[in-house]
Amino acid sequence: MTDSSLAPVRWDGEALVLLDQRQLPHEETYLRCTDHAEVVAAISTMVVRGAPAIGIAGAFGVVLAARAAGKVSEGRRADYLQAALRALREARPTAVNLAWAVDRMATCLASAGAELVAALTEEAERIFDEDLAANHRMGDLGAALLSPGARVMTHCNAGALATAGYGTALGVIRSAWREGRLAEVFATETRPWLQGARLTAWELQRDGIPVRLITDGSAAHVMRTRGVAWVIVGADRVAANGDVANKIGTYALAVAARYHGARLMVVAPASTVDLSTPSGEAIHIEERTPSEVLEVAGTRFAAPGVEALNPVFDVTPADLVDVLVTERGVLERPDAAGMAALMA
Amino acid sequence: MTDSSLAPVRWDGEALVLLDQRQLPHEETYLRCTDHAEVVAAISTMVVRGAPAIGIAGAFGVVLAARAAGKVSEGRRADYLQAALRALREARPTAVNLAWAVDRMATCLASAGAELVAALTEEAERIFDEDLAANHRMGDLGAALLSPGARVMTHCNAGALATAGYGTALGVIRSAWREGRLAEVFATETRPWLQGARLTAWELQRDGIPVRLITDGSAAHVMRTRGVAWVIVGADRVAANGDVANKIGTYALAVAARYHGARLMVVAPASTVDLSTPSGEAIHIEERTPSEVLEVAGTRFAAPGVEALNPVFDVTPADLVDVLVTERGVLERPDAAGMAALMA
Repeated sequence: MTDSSLAPVRWDGEALVLLDQRQLPHEETYLRCTDHAEVVAAISTMVVRGAPAIGIAGAFGVVLAARAAGKVSEGRRADYLQAALRALREARPTAVNLAWAVDRMATCLASAGAELVAALTEEAERIFDEDLAANHRMGDLGAALLSPGARVMTHCNAGALATAGYGTALGVIRSAWREGRLAEVFATETRPWLQGARLTAWELQRDGIPVRLITDGSAAHVMRTRGVAWVIVGADRVAANGDVANKIGTYALAVAARYHGARLMVVAPASTVDLSTPSGEAIHIEERTPSEVLEVAGTRFAAPGVEALNPVFDVTPADLVDVLVTERGVLERPDAAGMAALMA
Repeated sequence: MTDSSLAPVRWDGEALVLLDQRQLPHEETYLRCTDHAEVVAAISTMVVRGAPAIGIAGAFGVVLAARAAGKVSEGRRADYLQAALRALREARPTAVNLAWAVDRMATCLASAGAELVAALTEEAERIFDEDLAANHRMGDLGAALLSPGARVMTHCNAGALATAGYGTALGVIRSAWREGRLAEVFATETRPWLQGARLTAWELQRDGIPVRLITDGSAAHVMRTRGVAWVIVGADRVAANGDVANKIGTYALAVAARYHGARLMVVAPASTVDLSTPSGEAIHIEERTPSEVLEVAGTRFAAPGVEALNPVFDVTPADLVDVLVTERGVLERPDAAGMAALMA
């Protein structure tokens, strides 16, 4: 189903097989989920992460729930399925792709006949295939915007690991590299989870794309001193007015890019756009445990009793977004009218 | 000599005793330096850090060199001392306080008579005492600028640990807290060395000042959502035009503060001002080993072969500095004329 050796989310016919991204890059361990509760846990503990990837995982979670529902007494079946859908939908709050995928599966569930599990499996595989195709399309559209020799910066991991394959922001970077438009990538390490250090640098290096890792705090300095033309990121939710929720630190890069005249490109499939969210103010920003800030990989750095604040997403207002790239096309300076037209 | 239980740099009459800041906050280990080469090593490996503190350490390093020079044959003594001065002066490149303190000791050395070691010890102790007094003065001047109930953000550690005691940025925060002007401090963790997590949060918590740790990447989001009025930082070098070199990440905070209407206060003693450096462009920005980015506390996160860029300071242009606080007074919107008047 994928065109990359990276298979972060894979259906083996019986179970959902997830590459445990918490162990990367040092170990490639796969977790085989045979019931939906395991999928919920895998999403909330970030075995699988990245907005499109958790959407796909959620969809196959519905398949597992429907299969298990066959063994539940008929009177309790509907309740069982509703509870499973709710648990999957709420496994993480900020990325809309998860809710989108679970809702799409619920629609399929409502209309499916006797071959329920087969129909749901097909629908989940369709979600997967569509995401992969969208990534390639976005890669081509985004790469066309770069001038040859571009230096770019990316944040967190919006790569093959965050999607069905190829990646959103990293899809653009892959396409740009293939087309000879790319000089170098600066990858921010992305505290507290270090997705840039662990995942993005690893993905790009595997593809032979020149990448250097930097601390999040040095990004503005690197923009100023190294001639960064584009900051290219993914998204967890794009609101109806074009506001973008994405990994914490995106907003700081957007502010710095505007100050330096670098351009901000947000790359996200249409499944990330949520027209029912009027603006970024309505987006629930997940806060995770302070220990993710107080510790690094289980080593405590802060003194006992020190408190921390750990919002893991932030909102970049639409007026800081230069270009939104979706598989439906490119939208410059997104606003409500442009978003409505794009999604019509 | 200090009014705090924190004694990061202390002369015990025979040796320079340094609190090993690499082990904080978990262990309070002291390193006793009895020759100047140990002081050079302690500065370059960051046993002692913070621009004023490494200046003081360098000054006592000269005392140790002069004492050892007494045992060197008279014909080689001058060369020995010159080599020691140079090694101390160059132990780290960016903070000017180190060069300033070593040069001041060299002047004392040139004019001292028979009681050379005694004269140098007195001079080094004077540098220490002046720094402590400057911190208290700057604390009062800076705190007076804050409105009651202020939420502030600080970066790295510009505290008692970075100075003779009390601190520059944290001196202002301490004074503001005592005067009831402070609601809360957000301390950025400050990768790659995590001085915010390890040192600043610890220092403030010891004093009962409310502090929450945040990742560097979340600072702009926290400014936007939590009503931060001031970003208060120290400096490693202030150029003649008011440009400020400070810990990597300061520039990003300055850009974000300007975007949000928060104000940037740089707190630094006059010994940090270098009128011989015309602007930030002339400041040598130290780059340290990539392993500081690729690893956290000895644990490697990036895949083998991944490269990193590790500039550990950046330059904030004067036009992003709202206020420079020195012991000589407060300078709003520093520029060349204002700097010259301040230092006259």
